[in-house]
Amino acid sequence: VETPPADPAEAEAFLRLYHAENPAAGPLRTRLREVLRSIARTGTYTHTPDELVYGARVAWRNSARCIGRLYWRALRVRDLRDVGSVEGVAVGCVEHLREATGDGRIRPTITVFAPDRPGRPGPRVLNEQLIRYAGYRRADGSVYGDPRNADLTDLARGLGWTGGAGTRFDVLPLVVRAGDGPPRVCAIPGDAVLEVPLRHPDHPWFASLGLRWHAVPAISGMRLEIGGVRYPCAPFNGWYMGTEIGARNLGDADRYDMVPAVAARLGLDTSHDRTLWRDRALVELNVAVLASFAAAGVTITDHHTESRRFLAHLEREERAGRICPADWSWIVPPISGSATPVFHRYYDEARLTPAFVQPGAGV
Amino acid sequence: VETPPADPAEAEAFLRLYHAENPAAGPLRTRLREVLRSIARTGTYTHTPDELVYGARVAWRNSARCIGRLYWRALRVRDLRDVGSVEGVAVGCVEHLREATGDGRIRPTITVFAPDRPGRPGPRVLNEQLIRYAGYRRADGSVYGDPRNADLTDLARGLGWTGGAGTRFDVLPLVVRAGDGPPRVCAIPGDAVLEVPLRHPDHPWFASLGLRWHAVPAISGMRLEIGGVRYPCAPFNGWYMGTEIGARNLGDADRYDMVPAVAARLGLDTSHDRTLWRDRALVELNVAVLASFAAAGVTITDHHTESRRFLAHLEREERAGRICPADWSWIVPPISGSATPVFHRYYDEARLTPAFVQPGAGV
Ligand code: HEM
Ligand code: HEM
Repeated sequence: VETPPADPAEAEAFLRLYHAENPAAGPLRTRLREVLRSIARTGTYTHTPDELVYGARVAWRNSARCIGRLYWRALRVRDLRDVGSVEGVAVGCVEHLREATGDGRIRPTITVFAPDRPGRPGPRVLNEQLIRYAGYRRADGSVYGDPRNADLTDLARGLGWTGGAGTRFDVLPLVVRAGDGPPRVCAIPGDAVLEVPLRHPDHPWFASLGLRWHAVPAISGMRLEIGGVRYPCAPFNGWYMGTEIGARNLGDADRYDMVPAVAARLGLDTSHDRTLWRDRALVELNVAVLASFAAAGVTITDHHTESRRFLAHLEREERAGRICPADWSWIVPPISGSATPVFHRYYDEARLTPAFVQPGAGV
Repeated sequence: VETPPADPAEAEAFLRLYHAENPAAGPLRTRLREVLRSIARTGTYTHTPDELVYGARVAWRNSARCIGRLYWRALRVRDLRDVGSVEGVAVGCVEHLREATGDGRIRPTITVFAPDRPGRPGPRVLNEQLIRYAGYRRADGSVYGDPRNADLTDLARGLGWTGGAGTRFDVLPLVVRAGDGPPRVCAIPGDAVLEVPLRHPDHPWFASLGLRWHAVPAISGMRLEIGGVRYPCAPFNGWYMGTEIGARNLGDADRYDMVPAVAARLGLDTSHDRTLWRDRALVELNVAVLASFAAAGVTITDHHTESRRFLAHLEREERAGRICPADWSWIVPPISGSATPVFHRYYDEARLTPAFVQPGAGV
């Protein structure tokens, strides 16, 4: 694991931004001198608690792929920078889930664990999200469960995980590394994972498909970068937009691939693409997701509401004199694109920091 | 109207491409010398009939926004380069519509009128497409018909068009300019415009919405550029992909905006976005378009079929050792994006010539 020193230019750019947007934070100059001296001496520096909170929120604000940024100022930041052990990280992640889940009133939250320091890498969670369903490889090459997580499932088994109950929705354990140490599996207690069984408001048979999904999407596979400091373990969550579950997780042909089964139960004519049976089934799958979460009292948003909110966010950012970078192909929802206002315009594509970064994404 | 001389470098690049892909075309060197001499002497040159056909087809092949390129080799090219008068262009466009419509078996066709020459601009059709429905402005600022064509409707009226029958689907006359001459209106005979009344296979009430659409999408507002020569009037058509009509033309809020009316007739609960009434109504609108065209024997394609064809095209192009530029946000259909295979990948974004160019699009 490579842990380069903090780049002084990035540190300076961040501190300038922080002080410009937070005039009450005191004199820039003093802090800048302190930070540059620390980098020169130790290869890194330590963010103040306020810098950390601000940096994490602005990393969200800068996430060009995220349609949910209207509430970026409300991100709850849990400061666990003194935690770097496997056990500590696992416990911190489980606490994160409990706090963020809030019995269904989901709270956008980030937990920041120990940063990388020169020669001393921080901890990492190898799961892409804190909650992932196992994908069990079968002899014929197919996968039972979520095919996206087949590799992670193999890895967990190789590390001693004995497997779950054998359903299509077995929650995988966390796979955690501390620094250069070996990866280890840590189970997530069942009561830390709120799930919603899926029903359709008009079709009783829908429940018999046995579908469910977890309430909290908590991305744990991205690195948080603030002012040249890298936090390799900083899981964050918002609440779901329904299409993430209904269109992508349950609908994609290489995920749960439920569109053909739903179309069959709906009695649609699947003999020709022209009947748009795929489109119809996909909409009903999404209706079921939104209605089930709402009925269970679990926060969720739909793509129409969220598109409007995003345009409100864009306007606010413009009024604040800021660029709001956005990636059209991620912002436009995966169903009914042109029925949402975000479809009908272009966006700024600047790449700003602080940022969340996919490890291995180059820059 | 600015009509710069042909760029010798572009002429050379085109001739090299043409001779590389058409070894039977004879020696490049002779032709190149001839063309460069002609540009030096006259500021332009004349494509051979074969160069024109090849150039038009490759302009289609290079159209990064077009999902329908699998059949680029089959484009029919009508050579009307000796036509530049208003009457001549109008007659040529009407002939184009008749030939391309083929009683419903639509044929991808382009008609190439006189090019720009230094100091002698070619003709132009000011309509964005040969067939456009009028948008009549009302006193309250709203538009009756297609709001997209309100400016063109104003223009036509200012030039003496007395208006159509007063329906929401009145075909506008062509507005044609010859060189620097004044724009003039030329009616399109009704029997040159095949239209399809829209019905829904499951909902008899749908017909009473009175919706219809024309069979042939013939873009007349783009310039064809081949080897440095600009053809400002070169209308081309394929057949429709259903979403162009069902999602965009009839669905967009700033076009016919039919989603609320269809949702109301479907009896959907429009009290909350979460019921996905927009998504459901949009799908049924698209079902009606595809079914009505099929029933009328008019060629149309759906976005699932066309996505597969496009990926077949991409593969063929790769096998031929060529880049296939594609613009994700145009290629992915406006409904059910993630249900089509074109959603799940990225594309090359190179800008190649020959090309179709929006006038005023810079380069
Ligand atoms: C509050 C509710 C939120 C909603 C509704 C929301 C919605 C979304 C959606 C729909 C995506 C696209 C996901 C995909 O297609 O895979 C996305 C991506 C993203 N969001 Fe949000 N988000 C929310 C909160 C947050 C928070 C709290 C953060 C960080 C603090 C965040 C950062 C990101 C990032 C970095 C991505 C890109 C992920 C990637 O590259 O894979 N979002 N968001
Ligand atoms: C044969 C059937 C064809 C199909 C199904 C097809 C499909 C499409 C679709 C769906 C679009 C996007 C339209 C929009 O969203 O506004 C498009 C754009 C385009 N197509 Fe095709 N196409 C076909 C034939 C052709 C032909 C024959 C040409 C030229 C010779 C062509 C050139 C283009 C160009 C230049 C664009 C971009 C238009 C713009 O920038 O506004 N296409 N096509």
